[in-house]
Amino acid sequence: MKTITSRHNALVKRIREAIREHKDEIVIEGPKAVADAVAHGWKAIAVLERDVNVSADVFDHITETKNPQPVLGLFERPLARAADILANRDTIAVALDAVQDPGNVGTIVRLAAAFDAAGVLLLPGCADAFGPKAIRSSVGAILSVPIARMTTQELIDANVPLVATAMHGATDDPPSHNAVLIFGNEGAGVSEELLRHASALAVPMSGKVESLNVASTAAILLARSYGVRRR
Amino acid sequence: MKTITSRHNALVKRIREAIREHKDEIVIEGPKAVADAVAHGWKAIAVLERDVNVSADVFDHITETKNPQPVLGLFERPLARAADILANRDTIAVALDAVQDPGNVGTIVRLAAAFDAAGVLLLPGCADAFGPKAIRSSVGAILSVPIARMTTQELIDANVPLVATAMHGATDDPPSHNAVLIFGNEGAGVSEELLRHASALAVPMSGKVESLNVASTAAILLARSYGVRRR
Repeated sequence: MKTITSRHNALVKRIREAIREHKDEIVIEGPKAVADAVAHGWKAIAVLERDVNVSADVFDHITETKNPQPVLGLFERPLARAADILANRDTIAVALDAVQDPGNVGTIVRLAAAFDAAGVLLLPGCADAFGPKAIRSSVGAILSVPIARMTTQELIDANVPLVATAMHGATDDPPSHNAVLIFGNEGAGVSEELLRHASALAVPMSGKVESLNVASTAAILLARSYGVRRR
Repeated sequence: MKTITSRHNALVKRIREAIREHKDEIVIEGPKAVADAVAHGWKAIAVLERDVNVSADVFDHITETKNPQPVLGLFERPLARAADILANRDTIAVALDAVQDPGNVGTIVRLAAAFDAAGVLLLPGCADAFGPKAIRSSVGAILSVPIARMTTQELIDANVPLVATAMHGATDDPPSHNAVLIFGNEGAGVSEELLRHASALAVPMSGKVESLNVASTAAILLARSYGVRRR
């Protein structure tokens, strides 16, 4: 491959669009992350390295973040099916209901990997798990966790027990398998519609705070679910 | 109080310095947060309300964030003593060892409130819990949690059992009382010096990730400590 020296190069434009839109193509930054993505079976479209096959000027034009390890890869977006995630009844699946902060989505993807969830289902209103900030917050876990979008109605119709986090919920152990554990929007929590079809679960805590951050709630309940599963 | 209309007003300069430096004086934003701070016994130096006792132009000059509820209060920084936090042996204390991200510090302050820790001890290298981002991440918990700085040596000399999070640690229950639970730097973890004086504790998890975010680890272990304490 010839060295790219122009900002108007078609591949440069395509990578910038993938960073901005992250639809069918996803950008991964850093040599280890790119190697990990290939190792996990992600399909590489192109890999660019600053001063090797792309000029420093054009590379710096592409990336938002100053990266001390100037490698990036353009990949096909991995497609997981919600039905496949839901079919794994030996563990739980995670559903996110309008979780808007990409840092929270990425952190929960990392927790899903840490605590062996079947995958993450993104309901409408969620930040995309494949955006740059969510990918950074997942610290590599985006590569190993199946992620799929679905609608609220599809989840209700899926015929899997639903457990939704809610302040008024019971403080029982979370489910260890054969269930979907639903975390809600940063302000509004899980939607009324989903709460009508789910049992409600809360984290036991003192009265000194009104609520926890959704990523903290997910950390606590996914760790407990994993603990119950391994008993 | 006369309406302030000049950016060169002495109080305006003092508030801007408190936002930037947060040393002896702390700024709290929003009417509910200001009222809560007064209710928690924080000493107010001044309260400013946009278009009431300060012109819109000067108010907008003071605050970094666009606030839909344009009230801010300048307060004396609350002083807690590390010795008082450590004297409460019916629960645990939290120590942060060079936790650099103010969002992580604020989130852990919120968790300390949620799970009834005696207070938060900031060891050298930590972001200040009273900075604007940490205060926002604490979502009000900064008001109810005693926070004090101390050195690593002072903590080692305090003669309280130390438990440090570390990847090689045991996966036992965390301590419920009479202990300091130490969380470490985002990259390096807890310092070697502290690890030599502490027992090591890890969160049980799958091999799919190398580590968790420090705030996730704190959420899981503080919730479990609270659960053990209430058995």
